[in-house]
Amino acid sequence: MTLSATIQDIAQRAKAASRPLATASTETKNRVLAEIARGLTLNRDKIQTENLRDIKAARQKGMSEAMIDRLFISDKILEGMIQGLDQVIALPDPVGIITRSWTRPNGLEISKKRIPLGVIAMIYESRPNVTVDAAALCLKSGNAAILRGGSEAFYSNTILAHIIGNALEGTDLPRESVQVLPVRDRRAINELLVQENYIDLVIPRGGEALIRFVVEHSTIPVLKHYRGICHVFVDETCDVDGAVAICINSKAQRPGVCNAMETLLVHEQIAPIFLPKVARAFKEAGVEMRGCPATLALVPEALPASETDWSTEYLDLIVSVKVVKGITQAMDHIAEFGSDHTDVIVTNNPHNAETFVKTVSSSMVGVNVSTRFNDGGELGLGAEIGISTSRLHAFGPMGLEELTSTKFVVVGRGQTRH
Amino acid sequence: MTLSATIQDIAQRAKAASRPLATASTETKNRVLAEIARGLTLNRDKIQTENLRDIKAARQKGMSEAMIDRLFISDKILEGMIQGLDQVIALPDPVGIITRSWTRPNGLEISKKRIPLGVIAMIYESRPNVTVDAAALCLKSGNAAILRGGSEAFYSNTILAHIIGNALEGTDLPRESVQVLPVRDRRAINELLVQENYIDLVIPRGGEALIRFVVEHSTIPVLKHYRGICHVFVDETCDVDGAVAICINSKAQRPGVCNAMETLLVHEQIAPIFLPKVARAFKEAGVEMRGCPATLALVPEALPASETDWSTEYLDLIVSVKVVKGITQAMDHIAEFGSDHTDVIVTNNPHNAETFVKTVSSSMVGVNVSTRFNDGGELGLGAEIGISTSRLHAFGPMGLEELTSTKFVVVGRGQTRH
Repeated sequence: MTLSATIQDIAQRAKAASRPLATASTETKNRVLAEIARGLTLNRDKIQTENLRDIKAARQKGMSEAMIDRLFISDKILEGMIQGLDQVIALPDPVGIITRSWTRPNGLEISKKRIPLGVIAMIYESRPNVTVDAAALCLKSGNAAILRGGSEAFYSNTILAHIIGNALEGTDLPRESVQVLPVRDRRAINELLVQENYIDLVIPRGGEALIRFVVEHSTIPVLKHYRGICHVFVDETCDVDGAVAICINSKAQRPGVCNAMETLLVHEQIAPIFLPKVARAFKEAGVEMRGCPATLALVPEALPASETDWSTEYLDLIVSVKVVKGITQAMDHIAEFGSDHTDVIVTNNPHNAETFVKTVSSSMVGVNVSTRFNDGGELGLGAEIGISTSRLHAFGPMGLEELTSTKFVVVGRGQTRH
Repeated sequence: MTLSATIQDIAQRAKAASRPLATASTETKNRVLAEIARGLTLNRDKIQTENLRDIKAARQKGMSEAMIDRLFISDKILEGMIQGLDQVIALPDPVGIITRSWTRPNGLEISKKRIPLGVIAMIYESRPNVTVDAAALCLKSGNAAILRGGSEAFYSNTILAHIIGNALEGTDLPRESVQVLPVRDRRAINELLVQENYIDLVIPRGGEALIRFVVEHSTIPVLKHYRGICHVFVDETCDVDGAVAICINSKAQRPGVCNAMETLLVHEQIAPIFLPKVARAFKEAGVEMRGCPATLALVPEALPASETDWSTEYLDLIVSVKVVKGITQAMDHIAEFGSDHTDVIVTNNPHNAETFVKTVSSSMVGVNVSTRFNDGGELGLGAEIGISTSRLHAFGPMGLEELTSTKFVVVGRGQTRH
């Protein structure tokens, strides 16, 4: 078979599997998830042996230690996969829920009912635990999954796919409910992205280059997560110590993630008190400050920020700092440089809080909280498959519910249209 | 300016306009809509004069009378535009609505709040009334709109755009809240479809060729409506006269639209009674039947159906008819040939109704109703901007709510993440 025919065949099998999966009971789906967890537990050694093959190959290719670290399935990572499955088992099944219902004047009884999307393709890099996490969320929400991990994780993903397949085989659900692309050839992605007759959604997870590639080549809808350029605006009425704590948590608690703060905006009236305090705290936390001229005047040890700093996602212990005249300038800055991800105001003025919440339309808008709360678990949605920064379908963390759609169910007694 | 620069400029202006529009009050938005209605009323003659220019050019080009008919702004069409505006004014404003709220154990108060999508581009053919309808729905839902009608309606759309622009100018909202592409060059569409930094959604409305073109060239999310291959399945327990009425209404009440029935599936046990009856009714309504062999045995005057009939959207007084062994075969047929649009079961067996509703996942699944009810107005959603046949974001008729997204609002008292 040609590559094109192989990929089309996989997509068709996924579509066929999606039909019984869409009507599978919650019990059946949870049974599969528990079986996967059991398979992971029983095959620890095999998984880690296959993972070592990937790591050895990565070393030979001269891959960076940071990349190899992401590839490594440690005992802790494996334990995390198993716990993740237990968490997904515990989540409510969104499929079949009636989200709204009403009756029309002509007696038609109308309801909107949650249904799976159908077939979801995930394209991701490195971390092999995504294979298990994504499979679990897709299965629980009644969707068939086609998974394409990085070629550097090929052996790890293949053994994980095998364990998932065996778990499916032990139930009534088709083995093709979850498929891992069995080809390393990168052109497989191009072929996958044009199977719009069989695949309902593509979710890329990885660097910006991967995501742009997927968006450009896909004829299938894409839910994407570009950058997280998150802001904290400290206004003139804030509680200074509380504001410092929020800034340190937002920047330094885990700097390499998308919901970490990248830019701090400070009202000019509070800057003389606030900036020296936060600068000391940043210094203790090992954070480098890059400031506008007004910041540098108050914090001489900060480095000067260049124009590109305002649109840079550092993912590191670096923060850009700008003094602003007020909330309007802060919101304008966010509109110009933000990425619609997470933006927070720290204030004791209810009017400013309201204005900020009304005007800023990022996926999470916060008042007096750390940016780090924009996360499926922290918001109470359960496990997430990604954070969408586009407003279509899902905006923000995507949990089980965001992997579903709704259909209209219309029940009548023979009504016809006039 | 090059074409590329012109289109990017328009997209940027739309994005800038979308900010004040997103926070505009319901009153302001309704005032603009009322002003547009007034503008249409005052400029009837001008509109129809410009429309005649388009029609004259279309005649010279040898366009079909059916196409010219769609292009024509009759008194009735103009009246319909004005009434449509009044209907949109009367609809509730979805923006700002809290759809859900909850409190986390750490005291964070979380809510999901409706926000506009941002900038919506509509690409459509012929009917110039879409210009006013789309502008009204986008404005009411707080979205900036970029409209690209067919080049054959250029003069009609230009005068309508002028009236809309003047209405906007009379309020606090930017004139660029609604822009009609001022270029006839078809390459403008290609340029528009890559403005993903400024445009949030593209909605194509027209033939399948237009929609496929948009899907293939867009880097912006697309909400599309392909074909409507709608089925009615008449099961063995149905009320025969009621089933005949539903079939006639589904097929013949308005055959040229997407929610008209294209294929009738009949249980073999009821076929000997039902088919001759429905055949008489179809004949009276001028409907041509194309049947499977079992249908032909019961209705000798029907034409034989070929394999392509099952996947043909006739949009005409033609129906394909197939006798099936039971509900499973009916649902398999729908899964194979259907287009996820509208499918109906006619039955008196509650178990069959339940199975059908659970298994068939088209945008509308009906029990004992005409397929023609899959319509924003009929379902009680108000005016619709299109019917989506893909499950992402919106599935089925798209009203005002479907032109919005939600953001998370998180209010705390200084909480940080552990």
